[in-house]
Amino acid sequence: MRVALLAGGTGGAKLAAGMQEELGADLAVIANTGDDVEALGVHVSPDPDLITYWLSGEIDEERGWGISGDAFVVFERLEQLGAPSWFGLSDRDLAACLYRCQFLADGGRPTDAQAQIARGLGVEARVLPMSDSPVRTRIVTPGGSRGLQEYLILDGGQPQVLGVELEGIESAEPTAEVLEAIRVAEAIVIGPSNPVISIGPILALPGLREAIAASPAPVLAVSPYVAGAVVKGPTDRFMEGLGRPTTAAGVASLYAGLIDAMVVDEGDPDPPPAEIPTLAAPTLMEGAAGRVRVARTVLDYAATLGPS
Amino acid sequence: MRVALLAGGTGGAKLAAGMQEELGADLAVIANTGDDVEALGVHVSPDPDLITYWLSGEIDEERGWGISGDAFVVFERLEQLGAPSWFGLSDRDLAACLYRCQFLADGGRPTDAQAQIARGLGVEARVLPMSDSPVRTRIVTPGGSRGLQEYLILDGGQPQVLGVELEGIESAEPTAEVLEAIRVAEAIVIGPSNPVISIGPILALPGLREAIAASPAPVLAVSPYVAGAVVKGPTDRFMEGLGRPTTAAGVASLYAGLIDAMVVDEGDPDPPPAEIPTLAAPTLMEGAAGRVRVARTVLDYAATLGPS
Repeated sequence: MRVALLAGGTGGAKLAAGMQEELGADLAVIANTGDDVEALGVHVSPDPDLITYWLSGEIDEERGWGISGDAFVVFERLEQLGAPSWFGLSDRDLAACLYRCQFLADGGRPTDAQAQIARGLGVEARVLPMSDSPVRTRIVTPGGSRGLQEYLILDGGQPQVLGVELEGIESAEPTAEVLEAIRVAEAIVIGPSNPVISIGPILALPGLREAIAASPAPVLAVSPYVAGAVVKGPTDRFMEGLGRPTTAAGVASLYAGLIDAMVVDEGDPDPPPAEIPTLAAPTLMEGAAGRVRVARTVLDYAATLGPS
Repeated sequence: MRVALLAGGTGGAKLAAGMQEELGADLAVIANTGDDVEALGVHVSPDPDLITYWLSGEIDEERGWGISGDAFVVFERLEQLGAPSWFGLSDRDLAACLYRCQFLADGGRPTDAQAQIARGLGVEARVLPMSDSPVRTRIVTPGGSRGLQEYLILDGGQPQVLGVELEGIESAEPTAEVLEAIRVAEAIVIGPSNPVISIGPILALPGLREAIAASPAPVLAVSPYVAGAVVKGPTDRFMEGLGRPTTAAGVASLYAGLIDAMVVDEGDPDPPPAEIPTLAAPTLMEGAAGRVRVARTVLDYAATLGPS
């Protein structure tokens, strides 16, 4: 089954890892690039890289980000020299960013840089940045507008979210690879990532919703809420910022008109409205076996849905 | 005694380390930047950095370059991703280059980047890039013109040298810091670095020879030939390329009209002509004690010379 999976941070990336076990090269992961940031003199693309490390098996599973066993030698040296050090990158992680930075400086596309990184690390699935044009997510807080990484790292994700701005979104477009992955998909899955800052920027790309609507494949969202709470990250603040309930039903409201069905955790206290076909199943992805199990659940459910 | 030391690679850098012990902040090292190269996506400045690591005590003395105990994690990762890997950099070395690259991208000067790197590493002497404008040394060989690093690394320094070109030299100028260091110096020392590719580019800067001539300080060259041979590097090929004897006398011929005196190794088989006052003394710099001993020899000799 050819699957296009929309993903941002940890939840979507874990589901991608599980799906890759089942689908191999038939999986295309469409990754949010609204988190991208220039730091330490390199171009950092947190979501595509995080997904890549989950897919290559190098992720530090315990921490949930970065590469297992990787040190911070370069970062600590940069600190010693006086470089701004609010954004930390471990050595191998930084190498990928440096590679990308150079690739772009030579006139290459982010899509090709990411493909090359995935290839170098032996990743089977495709990791597709949502766009080759820069989109930068900014968070409007009572103290003013902040870049997303500043909000998450410097502010610790604490200030109230009044709104989310996507700088550059009007002139950005999905890549040809993204549109093709959607066109040929037999299922389109919205991963259990933050609906506002991870999935939101992907869906906000001009033409992206239309491309999904035009595809005959069923569109399925997986709720990031497990046992009524998000496993990792400040999703609730963003849901509140958009005036949505911090529940699966709130997520469903953000995807209204786009999705054909939803997978929620079996114990979800606030499932989507009845008009959305919903499968309730265990969605906590613990360990490799847990990721494959949830992937299998989602894929099996997708197979039961007809073309949309 | 305020000293301006012209230096390139290992020999000059070792003498700088010895002199720093004697002079501290009164030492200004004017460093060749003709070796600079863009590699691995960063701006590499081999001579200023090598000098800095000799001065900070971090140099890998056995190897003669790079930082002691430093690993190549980022470099090996870049190789794995498919980056060109002819130019290797260890992790902390690369951090300095990345810092410089970012500093320059932010509109800073190479001089200030280098000062910041030295400060971060606790270096007492000043390390002054010869110019803030790019100068790139190219080597003319029977097979065509090659960048210096390509010649040294990819060609192993083997092809015959037909000539040396200094790209950008006409429009480059010494920095205000370099000119000031020469102006206030009580001795100007040309270090025992390759006279053609390390010292040559410094002396070729428009106005540099004139600044040295205008200074009342005695000008003293230290021969890189020890017991009739160069300790490290392909100096002979370059001397031959310029039609000079591969001896202290050959070096003296390149500095004719500029120097007031010379220090050569005590066993030198072909010393400078009699009209150049010459001190013959042991010049092999083995270990920290050897470096300080040679530095002391040079400084003591300089103190005996009157203003030029």
